[in-house]
Amino acid sequence: MIVVMQMGATEAQVQAVADAVRAKGYEPLVMPGEGRTAIGIPAALSTDERMTLESIIGRLEGVNKITQTSHSYKLASWEYHREPTVVKAGSQRIGPGSFTVMAGPCSVESYEQYLAAAQAVKRAGAKIIRGGAFKPRTSPYSFQGLKMEGLEIIKQVSTETGLASITEVMSADMVGAVAEHVDLLQIGARSMQNFPLLIEAGKSGKPVFLKRGPSATIEEFLLAAEYVLNEGCPDVILCERGIMPMDRTFTRNTLDLAAVPVLKSLSHLPVIVDPSHGVGVAKFVPAMAKAAMIAGADGLMIEVHPDPNEALSDGSQTLDPDQFSALMDDLRVLAPFAQRTL
Amino acid sequence: MIVVMQMGATEAQVQAVADAVRAKGYEPLVMPGEGRTAIGIPAALSTDERMTLESIIGRLEGVNKITQTSHSYKLASWEYHREPTVVKAGSQRIGPGSFTVMAGPCSVESYEQYLAAAQAVKRAGAKIIRGGAFKPRTSPYSFQGLKMEGLEIIKQVSTETGLASITEVMSADMVGAVAEHVDLLQIGARSMQNFPLLIEAGKSGKPVFLKRGPSATIEEFLLAAEYVLNEGCPDVILCERGIMPMDRTFTRNTLDLAAVPVLKSLSHLPVIVDPSHGVGVAKFVPAMAKAAMIAGADGLMIEVHPDPNEALSDGSQTLDPDQFSALMDDLRVLAPFAQRTL
Amino acid sequence: MIVVMQMGATEAQVQAVADAVRAKGYEPLVMPGEGRTAIGIPAALSTDERMTLESIIGRLEGVNKITQTSHSYKLASWEYHREPTVVKAGSQRIGPGSFTVMAGPCSVESYEQYLAAAQAVKRAGAKIIRGGAFKPRTSPYSFQGLKMEGLEIIKQVSTETGLASITEVMSADMVGAVAEHVDLLQIGARSMQNFPLLIEAGKSGKPVFLKRGPSATIEEFLLAAEYVLNEGCPDVILCERGIMPMDRTFTRNTLDLAAVPVLKSLSHLPVIVDPSHGVGVAKFVPAMAKAAMIAGADGLMIEVHPDPNEALSDGSQTLDPDQFSALMDDLRVLAPFAQRTL
Amino acid sequence: MIVVMQMGATEAQVQAVADAVRAKGYEPLVMPGEGRTAIGIPAALSTDERMTLESIIGRLEGVNKITQTSHSYKLASWEYHREPTVVKAGSQRIGPGSFTVMAGPCSVESYEQYLAAAQAVKRAGAKIIRGGAFKPRTSPYSFQGLKMEGLEIIKQVSTETGLASITEVMSADMVGAVAEHVDLLQIGARSMQNFPLLIEAGKSGKPVFLKRGPSATIEEFLLAAEYVLNEGCPDVILCERGIMPMDRTFTRNTLDLAAVPVLKSLSHLPVIVDPSHGVGVAKFVPAMAKAAMIAGADGLMIEVHPDPNEALSDGSQTLDPDQFSALMDDLRVLAPFAQRTL
Repeated sequence: MIVVMQMGATEAQVQAVADAVRAKGYEPLVMPGEGRTAIGIPAALSTDERMTLESIIGRLEGVNKITQTSHSYKLASWEYHREPTVVKAGSQRIGPGSFTVMAGPCSVESYEQYLAAAQAVKRAGAKIIRGGAFKPRTSPYSFQGLKMEGLEIIKQVSTETGLASITEVMSADMVGAVAEHVDLLQIGARSMQNFPLLIEAGKSGKPVFLKRGPSATIEEFLLAAEYVLNEGCPDVILCERGIMPMDRTFTRNTLDLAAVPVLKSLSHLPVIVDPSHGVGVAKFVPAMAKAAMIAGADGLMIEVHPDPNEALSDGSQTLDPDQFSALMDDLRVLAPFAQRTL
Repeated sequence: MIVVMQMGATEAQVQAVADAVRAKGYEPLVMPGEGRTAIGIPAALSTDERMTLESIIGRLEGVNKITQTSHSYKLASWEYHREPTVVKAGSQRIGPGSFTVMAGPCSVESYEQYLAAAQAVKRAGAKIIRGGAFKPRTSPYSFQGLKMEGLEIIKQVSTETGLASITEVMSADMVGAVAEHVDLLQIGARSMQNFPLLIEAGKSGKPVFLKRGPSATIEEFLLAAEYVLNEGCPDVILCERGIMPMDRTFTRNTLDLAAVPVLKSLSHLPVIVDPSHGVGVAKFVPAMAKAAMIAGADGLMIEVHPDPNEALSDGSQTLDPDQFSALMDDLRVLAPFAQRTL
Repeated sequence: MIVVMQMGATEAQVQAVADAVRAKGYEPLVMPGEGRTAIGIPAALSTDERMTLESIIGRLEGVNKITQTSHSYKLASWEYHREPTVVKAGSQRIGPGSFTVMAGPCSVESYEQYLAAAQAVKRAGAKIIRGGAFKPRTSPYSFQGLKMEGLEIIKQVSTETGLASITEVMSADMVGAVAEHVDLLQIGARSMQNFPLLIEAGKSGKPVFLKRGPSATIEEFLLAAEYVLNEGCPDVILCERGIMPMDRTFTRNTLDLAAVPVLKSLSHLPVIVDPSHGVGVAKFVPAMAKAAMIAGADGLMIEVHPDPNEALSDGSQTLDPDQFSALMDDLRVLAPFAQRTL
Repeated sequence: MIVVMQMGATEAQVQAVADAVRAKGYEPLVMPGEGRTAIGIPAALSTDERMTLESIIGRLEGVNKITQTSHSYKLASWEYHREPTVVKAGSQRIGPGSFTVMAGPCSVESYEQYLAAAQAVKRAGAKIIRGGAFKPRTSPYSFQGLKMEGLEIIKQVSTETGLASITEVMSADMVGAVAEHVDLLQIGARSMQNFPLLIEAGKSGKPVFLKRGPSATIEEFLLAAEYVLNEGCPDVILCERGIMPMDRTFTRNTLDLAAVPVLKSLSHLPVIVDPSHGVGVAKFVPAMAKAAMIAGADGLMIEVHPDPNEALSDGSQTLDPDQFSALMDDLRVLAPFAQRTL
């Protein structure tokens, strides 16, 4: 931790900070400079020790700002895990080398619809089928998913098609039920900081697919992953799905594609991009899907529906089977360039 | 719903939209103008009917944009409830006329700490004691609250001091336990779209204090309230607590004080402001607290700790009892100006 | 400047940074701690020296981040000017103690319109008349202002009514002409980083009223003021007028009212709030105007038009004379509470 | 224009709107529906007529919102120009089919430095040399560029190397001088709404390279282009360079890559991406540069310096010649996939 004093801070003010540091049992390192003094605290502080100290010092006269020298995520960082993590989900391996496409409808609507979707995405080359049984919807008046019946359909279609399966779990008390039916647990963007859910998912024994919240910083995102990792689950997949947009006129969110190389530089965890939610408009999805592969993503999550016009949710951002198939063809051509096998 | 065509859209494209509307059983109203045609659909659509139609039309050639003519919240709006809602919580009335200050520490740390906090805020004039038993913390390594023991302390201190009590509930399965111990249930900003939690809170029989998510639009905020109202709970309090900041250097969030008159113009629900999280720096809290009263808020939520330097969480944004008392004195002077009784 | 190494950075990497610092002639202060080493550079660096060093070190292996210990604005800070600045504009004094209301129409439309507006705002108690002769308009097809003719009208109306006058100048080459006609030069939000304009305004001999850009951080805002101050102009007024909104549905911008106490804590310059642009909707302007006074602002800029329905620009955010007069009455009641004379 | 009434608006309120529309000479089209009435105004309104009407109606009782059915840019839209624009700059053609890389240092620092940079980027395959003679710098204490001397160097190096040249012009009064020395005029992000500059650039006879402002919506960006086009200049190039970041910790801006397909869907103008400013960190530039090509960009602007460690500005986001050469090699491999010739 480094405390930077205001320009013109008095000697007494500097001493007060040094004294406060010593009172908590650490040895301060006073560093004058630029008319402005900095005070280093070279000690291994826990998060709470750090916050306590920050609170005390933040109230002293003459203090300009307090800077942390360490980030608070550990298990998610390269510093604690020197090899890239490759997540196993059913027969799939998600991470460097491969390129994993998870595709399917926003919602599971019926056995027939979900089977048709699964067959379509399988034919095009996807290896994991996605679809929501429990749907987080902004309005209470929107379709909320088939719930338990949806889970059964997911399991049955997964078995019949041989595709691995992923679905969203919305609350801690449903983790067990969902984990019994699918290969990967999805934590939605709105749940990124639902901590009881993160903890329970981390105990489930299943890989956890974690979407970035729309206003989450990179550090908040990695700390959410840390919650899961901290429960002993090594298999966390990070998903960039668009952040809060500045301009909602033409896209639903702002896809932060630079988050891919940034996350890769900070963490060993695989990174997947969801361009369907990221842009929210079907016609812009293929361009961003391909750009994501080139930017270094380990895979994609794409909304595909046998008939988007009849979709009960998210129809306007959903590809139809032909559009998806064309996209997969493009990705296969691009894959070698990105050192990926699709 | 109104569909606006692209400039230069052909007659055939306009007809295709009109046909699609008719195919779903509605009569389109074609409205040429400005080189650009608009097509109205004057029908009472459910949310899902609207989304289906939007998805179908959004895919047709020549369509520029689709505009909704109704908002999707109903119970939260003036249109469904013509009188301002006054929420009862214990002996308190929250809404126009009164001005309710909820104050207390970020976390319940011990019986002694919480009692001291309660006595201090009561002495200064607060009527509701706040404090967290379950703490949503960005890092898994931070203090997570005393949990059930904390709830007991809250109940005991509330009884002893005669203050009404509020605490946060983080997941649907804890609603029952929390509701037994407090007068108001708080839904935190990160849980604003935790829909299972909103539904359960709406069934609890307790008033629900709902914080705005950091990236929530006004409409998303009101729709979250709608989830609670839709379960038969009439007593929802809206809380503005700062939105995602553009510049995190000097404040923790951006307090969107204009949300107070905006929410008041759209909804009958009481609006409370939390300047402690809104700015995140103790020295700026009093100015924003007073500004909130003048902007039309029905009350405040303020973090106060008997000794902020020893607080286990949020110390740097917490007032000490003297600062809080001075703020309450100022608010009492201002209250008549705002037509409020404190 | 402080360089923070990555966790697990090698001794050699730390040495490489220390060597790079020494190569530029400064003595590094190595500070181990928390598994992570920090390296202080206690020297008075110019902005360019700092940027050069930052660029060199930023490329070395094992470096996590580089933190500045000084801010780059000087003349705008309390550290260089220990008394609050009171700006003189005509007969007005803008700064602590007083409360200055600048009001008038968005655009000067005619002598008659401007005179009527000036008389109305004077009657209500405003001391400075505002109005645009050169209008920055998002669309090239919108009314662009009366230009030189508008300047003549401003001067004439100012003389006739005895009100001080302010108008926007949009480019460096117009500073001379504008300065001849008004008491204060306004730099618009979109021009906040028009550096040639800032420099020229700083040489004009007139006080400069500087609006914060919609995406400007507090530091960028103060550095823009620094450009003006650096030309020898001591009379800069800072104006918060709303930052980029997250949600454009109900307000035009997000009025960042906390910027008032933040700016006051960092700078000796007066701070004015413009709620008209800040919210962009006439009915929300009075609430935010009063809140701004209570939050510590030194004054307001308000759009007032004799007949907003006939305004050539910004009509929907403009008060009519009766609304403005009512607001001024409220402000007079509040002023003593804010230790202001209106 | 479409006026949407509040739910429960009275017949008299609807009539008042209809009457206001008629009073201005247009025939309203009343469209009841969903408990809520909409009123269409099918007429070709100028921007000012529209704003006047919007202002009048916005004040009437019972009005919920007013929606525009037309966008305000015209010359920039596909509706007015049915073929993609290919901009000529010196011997270069910028637009579909080709892929234009503009590269060079942030600032022109000396003849030797600029020549070395030009030779390096030419060797790697760039066709246009970029470099600033006039530098917009956040701080007045930073290096401000060589100014006129810089322009001479740019012209000389362009002639000697055969590369086309581009440099930024910061104010209207410098357009003539700059236009005499370079092939393309650059308008910087901070000048995107410097309207006098846009107008003057549009009259210069040179192609104009327009950077998107950090808080500019897509429509504001296209309207800025419209200012240039409206002066008779058909050759405008749009440049996405990153928007205001939510999280400044790891990148300088948020590169909005989806803006590429969005702009392409709305406008015939070429779109270039600047990943150097877009992310602001050299190591993330190549990934985003390649992703931009795949997302559909017509080219790139990249900062390259013979020795980034010695750069007087922007060193930390600048590639060295080897990094740039490796990137160009990658782009050449990718180009056929994007139907581009590099």
